[in-house]
Amino acid sequence: MAILQPIHNIAEIFSKKNVKTAILCPGSRSAALTISLVRHPDIETFSISDERSAGFIGMGMAQVTGEAVVLVCTSGTAAYNFAPAIAESFFQEIPLIILTADRPAEWINQYDGQTIFQREIYGKHVKKSFELPSEYSNTDVVWQIERVVNEAINLAQVHPKGPVHINIPIREPFYPTVEEDITYDKNVRIISNVEIEKKLSNQFWSNFKDIWENCENKLIIVGHRQSSGLDETLEKFSSEMCIPVIGDIISNVNNIDSILADVFLSSKNELFRSKFKPDLLITCGKSIISKNLKIFIRNNKPTFHFHIQENPDLTDPFQTLTHKVEVSPEYFFKQLFEDLDFLSFKKGEDEIDNQYLKFWTEASVKAKQTLNGFLNSSEYCEFKVIRNVLDKLPENSIFHVANSMVVRYSNLIGLEKGKNIEVFANRGTSGIDGSLSSALGSALKTNKTVTCLIGDMSFFYDRNAFWNTYLPDNLRVILINNHGGNIFRIIDGPNKQPEVSEYFETKQNSSAEYFCKENDVEYQKVFDEESLGNALNLLHQITSRPVVIEVEVDGSQNVQIFNSYKSLFADFS
Amino acid sequence: MAILQPIHNIAEIFSKKNVKTAILCPGSRSAALTISLVRHPDIETFSISDERSAGFIGMGMAQVTGEAVVLVCTSGTAAYNFAPAIAESFFQEIPLIILTADRPAEWINQYDGQTIFQREIYGKHVKKSFELPSEYSNTDVVWQIERVVNEAINLAQVHPKGPVHINIPIREPFYPTVEEDITYDKNVRIISNVEIEKKLSNQFWSNFKDIWENCENKLIIVGHRQSSGLDETLEKFSSEMCIPVIGDIISNVNNIDSILADVFLSSKNELFRSKFKPDLLITCGKSIISKNLKIFIRNNKPTFHFHIQENPDLTDPFQTLTHKVEVSPEYFFKQLFEDLDFLSFKKGEDEIDNQYLKFWTEASVKAKQTLNGFLNSSEYCEFKVIRNVLDKLPENSIFHVANSMVVRYSNLIGLEKGKNIEVFANRGTSGIDGSLSSALGSALKTNKTVTCLIGDMSFFYDRNAFWNTYLPDNLRVILINNHGGNIFRIIDGPNKQPEVSEYFETKQNSSAEYFCKENDVEYQKVFDEESLGNALNLLHQITSRPVVIEVEVDGSQNVQIFNSYKSLFADFS
Repeated sequence: MAILQPIHNIAEIFSKKNVKTAILCPGSRSAALTISLVRHPDIETFSISDERSAGFIGMGMAQVTGEAVVLVCTSGTAAYNFAPAIAESFFQEIPLIILTADRPAEWINQYDGQTIFQREIYGKHVKKSFELPSEYSNTDVVWQIERVVNEAINLAQVHPKGPVHINIPIREPFYPTVEEDITYDKNVRIISNVEIEKKLSNQFWSNFKDIWENCENKLIIVGHRQSSGLDETLEKFSSEMCIPVIGDIISNVNNIDSILADVFLSSKNELFRSKFKPDLLITCGKSIISKNLKIFIRNNKPTFHFHIQENPDLTDPFQTLTHKVEVSPEYFFKQLFEDLDFLSFKKGEDEIDNQYLKFWTEASVKAKQTLNGFLNSSEYCEFKVIRNVLDKLPENSIFHVANSMVVRYSNLIGLEKGKNIEVFANRGTSGIDGSLSSALGSALKTNKTVTCLIGDMSFFYDRNAFWNTYLPDNLRVILINNHGGNIFRIIDGPNKQPEVSEYFETKQNSSAEYFCKENDVEYQKVFDEESLGNALNLLHQITSRPVVIEVEVDGSQNVQIFNSYKSLFADFS
Repeated sequence: MAILQPIHNIAEIFSKKNVKTAILCPGSRSAALTISLVRHPDIETFSISDERSAGFIGMGMAQVTGEAVVLVCTSGTAAYNFAPAIAESFFQEIPLIILTADRPAEWINQYDGQTIFQREIYGKHVKKSFELPSEYSNTDVVWQIERVVNEAINLAQVHPKGPVHINIPIREPFYPTVEEDITYDKNVRIISNVEIEKKLSNQFWSNFKDIWENCENKLIIVGHRQSSGLDETLEKFSSEMCIPVIGDIISNVNNIDSILADVFLSSKNELFRSKFKPDLLITCGKSIISKNLKIFIRNNKPTFHFHIQENPDLTDPFQTLTHKVEVSPEYFFKQLFEDLDFLSFKKGEDEIDNQYLKFWTEASVKAKQTLNGFLNSSEYCEFKVIRNVLDKLPENSIFHVANSMVVRYSNLIGLEKGKNIEVFANRGTSGIDGSLSSALGSALKTNKTVTCLIGDMSFFYDRNAFWNTYLPDNLRVILINNHGGNIFRIIDGPNKQPEVSEYFETKQNSSAEYFCKENDVEYQKVFDEESLGNALNLLHQITSRPVVIEVEVDGSQNVQIFNSYKSLFADFS
């Protein structure tokens, strides 16, 4: 048996537990992990050199597949370069298993190369952090390693999903000899985590239905969520029970007309706004982009607010929570609908009061007309470009929207109902880093077209996303280049400071053109509506390489246009 | 008084305590810090968008000036992107003060944007981590803030120097109004840390001199060290007391002929090697590159090994330590020399036995002849290129050598004595990340020419070093492009695996040419000795932009040449 046999066996445990993708960052300390993962017939491996990008690529893969992805790095700062992606995964609840190779404990802080303090290095941003032993002679140690790897995989994939870290000190020799074959012990121990059904008691349902019946205005708000089995049920709440369902573009509520609450709730007309106050609020999902919606709910507190979330942390971004319900939203809404449906059938009720829903939908329809009227008559600008991009997104495709202004614009526009577009966004920590890599990772694990809408700061920050040999031909990057962090000119505060250009917006002249040449990526430059229209055809065409569409826009003009759009809603009613 | 007055005053404390450089990464949460630092007349500020690069740029500045540099970022993953540079600074003992803006504690983990767990986020990689309060109404709180900032500055700059973290939760409004002037309270409290002289007792010196006299073979080894006041004293130990002083290229022992111990100690001739065994070993500095030297000392343990280091951590990379001496090497060697000199004068001793020194110097002279003979007759290759580069380094300049193969080659060659070249290398954690940014940071804080010798993996990993508006014209980058991590073909182990190309070397085709065009950086391509010779003239010329000299070399050929060089020393004697 090879000295590192228990380390090689980790690949076998992954395979048996259906963890089949690994991102490997080059290094010697991690060689035993690399080699055993590459040679395992069931595991697909990718070699990525910049660990920061590698972390986000792995995350993008786990995001699109829903399955845990393994990240492997060598010892030293490599581990820290994974950290931004790990934090994002933690708050987005994306399953990752991070294996950081390490020197054996006796060599830590001994002036020997590539050694940092890796134990528990990710702090509270992993669900749990393990450390393996570096001696394998005792059979209890082998039992420990197998047990820990099982626990890590189980933990990463049980709700709330998330990243789990195993630090793995490894002694030399790292490499098998030429004659030596890597083998896998087919009898590695597998410990399954038996799935638990979390249900609510009859007593709860009975009480809840009383509340339901006694509350006039009932509202459902869906925060950031990956697309899943909620669509159909929520659609029925909307169409059959006349309950308004409000979501952001990142909520993935696909088959209900999006309600543009963020704009019309900015109206200063108190009487108009008061119509939307809910009595019962049910929420699920994570963060909310729409600031006006958040402020509105905080100022118009419902009597009851039930938040449906399996994660045991108590989160209350509306500051209105009265009940936390730790079951899956899928179960909750399905059960609730069935019960209410049966109740209504038993009672033989007539027409459901749809007044409250009408307030929301009518305001939204009017807001959409305002939006389209405004954009149709406005000149070429960022806002209009993004509307046109959203219009042109292919059906059954994936839309990855980066942070900062592009996600805000997109959320003001919304997606067309029924096109079955899955939306991803790194809203766990809303960082400027990693969106390009995440989109690339997703594209590597789907046959669908992945369109990544991204601003120039995010794009260049994460340009090493393209520094690998796996550039997927189904990736379309739409780079909105206004040459700086235009958001700082748009939000109130920095725009009035003399430092805005140098220290907030950080004006920069980069263009992706040379960079695309360097990486053999198809490149199209857009500078007006016509060239945009032509370029967007590429979203529907097959190409042999990924495509970057660089859209040049005028940052200062954007600000004006954005402000005049917002001003349209000051007296909206 | 502005609500954020205690935050604005931090800039005043920095200024009064002579901390005069700040790297500011754009963000709203950190705006009060940004604005007060930018507007402070005594503080020089730089705006850098990629926090990973920003961290290393700041570190490079602190490295060259010896003075603490402030890093500022907004909340969220921005803080994690500083982490690689912070770990490197910790192990290199470089003073940094990291200010991470944060949401107030009540908003952590509440699905609100750009929020992670920032408290103590850098773990053991900072000397201490503080958190400021977010309410300033109580005067005790103002006392706390002033006290903490004083402590952080003191701590960063007291030996062992290093990074100190202050997490700063800040409530809105972040920005002053247009009418509002930022003012600084000129009466902020300043608490000085009174410097302590750490001296050794007469008793110690008396005992130590007994050991000195009783040990025949006395050896001084200097690990990784920034250049400083040791040169003159060590030169006297060598020339007047005939003590061999061995250092790596990163030890900055400038005015003694370098002893190429790493190559000749690889000799398999036991008798030859046995001549070098020390009885008394005195060491200072941090890590050692020369693997053969480390192994030699481990296998030829001296009777006494004194390590002179102010850092209280017990480090023993030779596994031979008998005494740890927590005083400055400057004091230790100066005092020792004076005492010995006086003793010898008193005793009226005649000629000092120089046999042991001669063993080392003669072997080194012969090794140098071997090296030059070998390289002069070898064809154009990486090794030869690097020798020519080292030969051409300007006097009184700075040489920043990146990790992996380039630092190993450089160490095999050594620098010419007396050219007063200061050598920097990120050997705290020996990461592939950040060398380009560090070199750029150094160049921004010196008028000397800074030559950065770097491989392609390091260069492209850290290419965002150039994503800012401060590109210094005294920076010369010599990029050795062998299109992958050639080290994995050179070290034994990965070179025999079928995965070597894809998963270790990670072959890549990037060239810096387009990238230099994008960033308006002067670019020269080198492909043979003649073009190298021409390009190297740029090390001595004034240019208006930084220069990248991209040296194309053949990775597979390098391996052969390197191995045949090593084989020359198998029977060396």
